[in-house]
Amino acid sequence: MPSGTLPPMNHRPNIFNQVKPIPRAERERKLGARGGVLWFTGLSGSGKSTVARALEHRLLDLGRMAYVLDGDEIRNGLNRDLGFTQGDREENIRRIAEVARLFAESGVVCITSFISPLRRHRDTARGIVGTDRFAEIFIDADLATCEARDPKGLYKKARAGEITQFTGIDSTYEPPEHPAVRIDTGTTAPDQATDLLLTYLRANGMLAG
Amino acid sequence: MPSGTLPPMNHRPNIFNQVKPIPRAERERKLGARGGVLWFTGLSGSGKSTVARALEHRLLDLGRMAYVLDGDEIRNGLNRDLGFTQGDREENIRRIAEVARLFAESGVVCITSFISPLRRHRDTARGIVGTDRFAEIFIDADLATCEARDPKGLYKKARAGEITQFTGIDSTYEPPEHPAVRIDTGTTAPDQATDLLLTYLRANGMLAG
Repeated sequence: MPSGTLPPMNHRPNIFNQVKPIPRAERERKLGARGGVLWFTGLSGSGKSTVARALEHRLLDLGRMAYVLDGDEIRNGLNRDLGFTQGDREENIRRIAEVARLFAESGVVCITSFISPLRRHRDTARGIVGTDRFAEIFIDADLATCEARDPKGLYKKARAGEITQFTGIDSTYEPPEHPAVRIDTGTTAPDQATDLLLTYLRANGMLAG
Repeated sequence: MPSGTLPPMNHRPNIFNQVKPIPRAERERKLGARGGVLWFTGLSGSGKSTVARALEHRLLDLGRMAYVLDGDEIRNGLNRDLGFTQGDREENIRRIAEVARLFAESGVVCITSFISPLRRHRDTARGIVGTDRFAEIFIDADLATCEARDPKGLYKKARAGEITQFTGIDSTYEPPEHPAVRIDTGTTAPDQATDLLLTYLRANGMLAG
């Protein structure tokens, strides 16, 4: 057996593909709709999970495949090797965006429900998913409202200094400048929010009818 | 602003979840089928991609959401930071299995198309996905057949020593001992293989009718 030298890593000759994936247009024709990513962003307690789950329910009831990627699911699985350093937070977002891209590619309406406080992280996600199938959804509630809701007592802990680098308290939140949809959860009920998002999905080919 | 000490990493108090995911049974009832993972394994050139794409086409034509995870897609995206060291190969499999689990959770029939030569790697994948929704599919063709096909000329390169650690040549392939389905691509055409797999999916609640 000849034992030639190992090629440089970026050469990666072991990567190949015998058979092409189904072209996107053909898949979308078969499914009758486009896949895409609704990238929710907002403070802790702003209502991201509530709206995400309400939308997922409605889409499934309409026969449209939808899936929420949320913090627990990802942090306890795919990204269980990552902590909360700046580098790890960036890798966390990168992997979430890559997975969201795969879901969009498959034809699913993928709803990501993460604070994702920094514009550059959301821009990274948009770059990975692709501008044409990425929609930034701003789940908006002011800090006082979120802090009053405080469903898990995290703001209280942050104020007491028991947890640090908590977004809105001692870590920055940068609101989206041009979100595809903005939902003020102080004045919009989850059902109304879902209606707004269904309208958006229909207008953008991600939901038939 | 109080500035308490950073809690230990495995404490991870920033992780929480306000709203529960849709229970699996409810999702499956809405979709009329269970999600799951068909974990293809076999030598390079055994026909994994060909069978995977044929099955994906048929499932989409039947109105069943299906998606193939393959090497290029993953190596150029989610796992672009990984090389081919033993540790990186293990992390590659771990992440693929985590993503496959998410697809299964969403209700999709997820078909993974990787050589995945080692039993312990496939066992890792089964552990991550969950035994009840993981099916090992052995795409079987002997080395001589695969080498004669050699669609990308990789066996030739491996024999010439231009690439090393190539499965079947200078790296081990451990065939599955109890695959859910075994397909001998030397004697089974892609359409027949697809029929076998549709039968398996129907018998296991992953395809209605």
